[in-house]
This record gives sequence, structure tokens and C-alpha cells, in this order.
Amino acid sequence: MTERVFNFSAGPAMLPEPVLEEARENLLSLGDTGIGILEHSHRGPAFKKVYEDAVAHCRQLADIPEDYHILFLHGGASMQFCMLPMNFLTPDATADYLITGRWSQRAIEQAQRFGQTHVVCSSKDRNFCYIPKERQYSERPTYVHFTSNNTIYGTQFTTEPDVPEGAFLACDASSDIFSRPIDITKYGLIYAGAQKNLGPSGIALAIIRDDLVQRGAENLPDMLQYRTHAKHNSAYNTPSTFGIYVMGLVFKWLLDQGGLAAMEERNRAKANKLYEYLDQSSLFQPTADADSRSMMNITFVTGNDELDAKFCSEAAEQGLAGLKGHRSVGGMRASIYNAFPERGVDALIDFMRDFEAKNG
Amino acid sequence: MTERVFNFSAGPAMLPEPVLEEARENLLSLGDTGIGILEHSHRGPAFKKVYEDAVAHCRQLADIPEDYHILFLHGGASMQFCMLPMNFLTPDATADYLITGRWSQRAIEQAQRFGQTHVVCSSKDRNFCYIPKERQYSERPTYVHFTSNNTIYGTQFTTEPDVPEGAFLACDASSDIFSRPIDITKYGLIYAGAQKNLGPSGIALAIIRDDLVQRGAENLPDMLQYRTHAKHNSAYNTPSTFGIYVMGLVFKWLLDQGGLAAMEERNRAKANKLYEYLDQSSLFQPTADADSRSMMNITFVTGNDELDAKFCSEAAEQGLAGLKGHRSVGGMRASIYNAFPERGVDALIDFMRDFEAKNG
Repeated sequence: MTERVFNFSAGPAMLPEPVLEEARENLLSLGDTGIGILEHSHRGPAFKKVYEDAVAHCRQLADIPEDYHILFLHGGASMQFCMLPMNFLTPDATADYLITGRWSQRAIEQAQRFGQTHVVCSSKDRNFCYIPKERQYSERPTYVHFTSNNTIYGTQFTTEPDVPEGAFLACDASSDIFSRPIDITKYGLIYAGAQKNLGPSGIALAIIRDDLVQRGAENLPDMLQYRTHAKHNSAYNTPSTFGIYVMGLVFKWLLDQGGLAAMEERNRAKANKLYEYLDQSSLFQPTADADSRSMMNITFVTGNDELDAKFCSEAAEQGLAGLKGHRSVGGMRASIYNAFPERGVDALIDFMRDFEAKNG
Repeated sequence: MTERVFNFSAGPAMLPEPVLEEARENLLSLGDTGIGILEHSHRGPAFKKVYEDAVAHCRQLADIPEDYHILFLHGGASMQFCMLPMNFLTPDATADYLITGRWSQRAIEQAQRFGQTHVVCSSKDRNFCYIPKERQYSERPTYVHFTSNNTIYGTQFTTEPDVPEGAFLACDASSDIFSRPIDITKYGLIYAGAQKNLGPSGIALAIIRDDLVQRGAENLPDMLQYRTHAKHNSAYNTPSTFGIYVMGLVFKWLLDQGGLAAMEERNRAKANKLYEYLDQSSLFQPTADADSRSMMNITFVTGNDELDAKFCSEAAEQGLAGLKGHRSVGGMRASIYNAFPERGVDALIDFMRDFEAKNG
């Protein structure tokens, strides 16, 4: 078999090898059923067990209270940008958004079609290279929305934003979910497209408090109401059975690694190594402010576009793939989610050191 | 490896073994890239080729004209039940629906939230066991919607319904798409959840004429506009990359089988064998009217619930799985989509003959 490379892609991204190997084993027959995982009815006993295990492992992993629903929803985080305001934002009400990058911008744009929106803070003035500390909330927002980690810009919140009384906190955690411990009780809704830290693309995990499920608008198409999916255990229509299966394997793998506290320790160690190298390098500069740095996506530049391109190209030849930064930041981006191994970070630093010696 | 059984599940359903084997090969490394198919960026060159091949093979397979977009959309057919009226049905306009089962019923219910609806015909009076011939259209419908094959009830349209002038034809073809030749030019929109004839669950194929893409409502959330997905080649957000990959393999497999005319011949042969046996059986009765029979889902009963249960249970022991009928029809259902092999139908008939001899 072809040797696997270190894949720094921002998403879809590396998955744990034991998870991929188990999925491969079960593609033509899930266990001894004689029916592949893609082919099992979502109403049958074999898939029912897959679903129940996924929910149980997710609940255990993040210590999710019983009054929160664990939903597997179609369409990734972008569909949540719609469902959140459609369910909760009425024309005369206001929703507060913290604008820290392209995805929070896209989220607020969807909300503007349903009600009033208010910008709590924005780091657009410096191309989203920091998490703003000064924040101004509207008077009585329905909810406060933020993006916990900004994939493109390499920034991350270290703590949850404040939430005015009467509002609930909603979070797009697509690029850092389950990378560190989380206090679910601070959130009304937390959601994540699966393709970075959880599984295949095209499916989202949504964790939502029961009172919000009950409160959501009722005049929406059934597919766009949280209550529909909560009532039918994510099987109102045929869910992405393979997506649920792989996410379940990832939850189990995270538990086997020691859970979220252990993952934070590993993720912090990986990121710190790379930032430490960057901070002493005379060729490479990190792009995010030091107090806003992401543990998941580490962005850096040489300041010379041609040299950046040369770096990415030579790195790829050495089995370090997907390092090209997003065009709105340029340079390089190393995405090192949960499944990305520490030895891949070591290999990157070795390569950078070598590249700096030759090109510095 | 465990021997594969004959899986008569209505969906998710059997996929072609060569497709599953190829997917398995590429789960840890797509070709020689060293990155598994689940882990490739949807913006990278390797996935770009997967996407382009899928579109090209789909276009070739069904002879889809260039003014139709081939879209891969989140959420299965149920999301299309919403997107269709949201994009095209205004409060003062009317959409016509042919009601031939649970899914067309669910489709019209979503449309009722956006504008007027009109029932062209309904076979509810006889538990949807036939395709009605008498049809009455509204005066100036925006579109006419029908479900070409009714998975639960085992009925299927043999030709497209008429369409009043000025309207376009919309079709949910989830359970018979690409099972026979199709004249795409008769349709404005044809869509299908993938999990029966095309691939994994959680994704839909939608083939839509360009003038409709342009005409759709513009005040909707971006994710719910066809134009968004057409403009971005189904990658406005991260699509189900694995779903597109597997569907592409299925399109290629269908071409290798000889295309849609060859598939129709095979599907007709499989279905006819089973119906011929049912028509001469004194134990089993088919439930659909003879002129409305589906080639994809064949429903039958003994008339005795206990005997039906015994049949399903003993069949499963013989490697004939998923034969239990939907609770709203009862009895048995054999779903024999494109990927279901003829020898599985032979095995079922042998078992039925044996069961009839013992229990008749």
C-alpha cells in the first residue's frame, strides 16, 4: 500500500488511522452481518447500535448533560448558519455576532435575512489576525454567536464570550470541537461540520439544549426545525449513516486516547512546538497575534510570495502536504487537528529548519 | 471475510461490489496520493478530478444536455421537498402534486407552507396500490411534482405525467433514478436521494435546467438556493466528498454495464421473474395493481401476519435479508435496485417455492 503522507489540509483533514482501518474492514460487511456499513438500513438493528454507540460515546466524551440533544444533521456548519436564525430569530428581535473571520461573516449574513443583527466586535480591521477583547452587546439579544476557532486566520477563543441575560450562546466549533475540554452547559447550541475534527464532510454534529428545541419556530419546513431531528433521533429522513458511523469511531478513539483533557495536552504540545520554532525563526513569521493563536491552524508567511510557493512545493515533495495558506491570508497554514500526529509536526519543523538554512 | 448476503433493504441498499472494493482500496490512500478519500481537500486537484469525472460520467450516462446543471446537494430528497417550493412557489401561485404515497404526501406538506397546492390525483383510497390514470390539473400551476417510484407501495410511473403550459415538471426519482433510460429534457428538476440507486445516504443528486436556476428566489439563505450550488459547482460549502466519490464510481459502473438501456433490460428481467412467480403462487399475492407495478420494489403478502413474519425470519437465516415490508403495507418487500444481482432474485424465488411447499 502507498505510504501515507502528513496531510496539513484544513478540512477535509486527516482522520485517525485506526478509524480508517476499521471503516475499511466494514465496508463490505459490518461485522459478520454480510452487509456493508453503507448498505445497512438506517432503521435496522445493526445501524441502530452504531447510532446508539455514537451518541453514548459523544455524551461521555464531552460530559453532555441529559437535557442536551446530540443531533447529526445534514449539510455541515453552513446549514446551521441558516437553521439557527430560522428557528430563533424573529423580525423584531436581535442576534449578536462576534465577527472574527469569513465564517462568522457568512453566518451573520444568513441571519440578516430573518431579523436584526448586531456586531459585538470585529477584527476585520487587521484581516482577522486577532480575537477582539473589546465587545459591545446589544440590549436584549436573542442569542450570541461566535466562531470558536478561525480556520483561515489561525485564531482561537480561549474562553467563551459573555452572554447578556436572557440570551443563549451559539457556537460554530467546526475547527476545534473536542480538541480540549468544554463546558457544554455554557452553550444553548454548539455545532460543528464534521470534516475537521470529527469525520467525513457533509454532516454536522449539533448539541442543543432541550428548551431551545421546544422553542424553535414551528412554521418552518420540517427538515429545518431542530425539533424534527430531536424527535426522530436524527432519522426523520435517512441520515448520513456512514458519517454517523465514522464520527462514532472517532468519539471512541478520543475516549481511548484519554478523553478531552488528554487531547488538549497533546494538541497544546504540538502547537507550542511549532510556535516556538516560528518565534525564533528569522525567515518565517506567524500571522496571528500571540494572545489569539489557534492550537488547530497555525498560519505563517515568509513575506515573499515566491518563497512561500517554493516552500509549499518542496514540502509536498517531502510528504508534507496541504500547507498552502488560504488566499485571503497567503503564505502557509498547518492544520493540526486531533488526528494529526506529533511526529508530523516534528517533520515539518525539521523541514522548515532545513529550508531556512538554505533560503534564509 | 464474511460472505455477503442478498440485501433486499429499501435504502440504504446494496451497492455494486466492484464499487465497494474500489472505495475500500482508496480509504487510506486515494491512488498514490498518500491521503485517503475522506481526507482530501474538496479544493485540491485529487478531489477536483473525482468531482469532474462524476459529473462527466453522469452527463454521459443519462445524456444530460449542457443547459442542465448536475448538482450534489446536502440532505437527501427530503431537503428537496423544501428547496423546490422555497425557490419556485410564491404565496399567490399554485403547485400541482400527484399523490401516490408517503413521500409525495410529505413533499406537498412542505410546499403548503409557501404557496397554494393542488392535488392532481391521489391513490390514497386504496392505500396507494396503484398509479391513478385520472388526473386534474390546476389552471396555471408553477410546476407539477410527482414521485416516479413509490418505494413503500411498490408502484411506479411508466411515463411522465402531462404538464400544463407554462409549468415545469419536477420529480423525486429517489428509488428508480438511472434504472432505465430517461429523457431529461422533459424535466425542469429531477432529484434523488442517493441511498437507493446511487451511493451512500445523506446526499442528493439534482439535475436542474439553467433557466430555473436563474429564476429561483433570491431572498433565501444561500444554502437553500439552487443558484448558489450551481455557481459553485456543488462546493459553496464542503460537500459530501465521499458521497460524490461513490456516486461517481456508480455512474462509471453503470456505463460499464452498458448504460441505462442495458440496466432497464436487466431490471425488467429481475422484476418479471419475481412477478411471474407471484402471479402463479397460491400462497403469496402481490399488493400493487398489475399495471402499476414497480421494477424496483416488489411488495407481496401471504394475508397472514404470522406467516409473513415467519417467512422474513426464515429467509434472513438463508442469507435473504431486509425482506420485511413497510408497516403501512405489511407483508414483504423485495427491493431490487440496479446493484441487486439477478442470482439474488433466483435465490429468493427458490426459497419462496420451498416455503410455499411447506406452508401453503
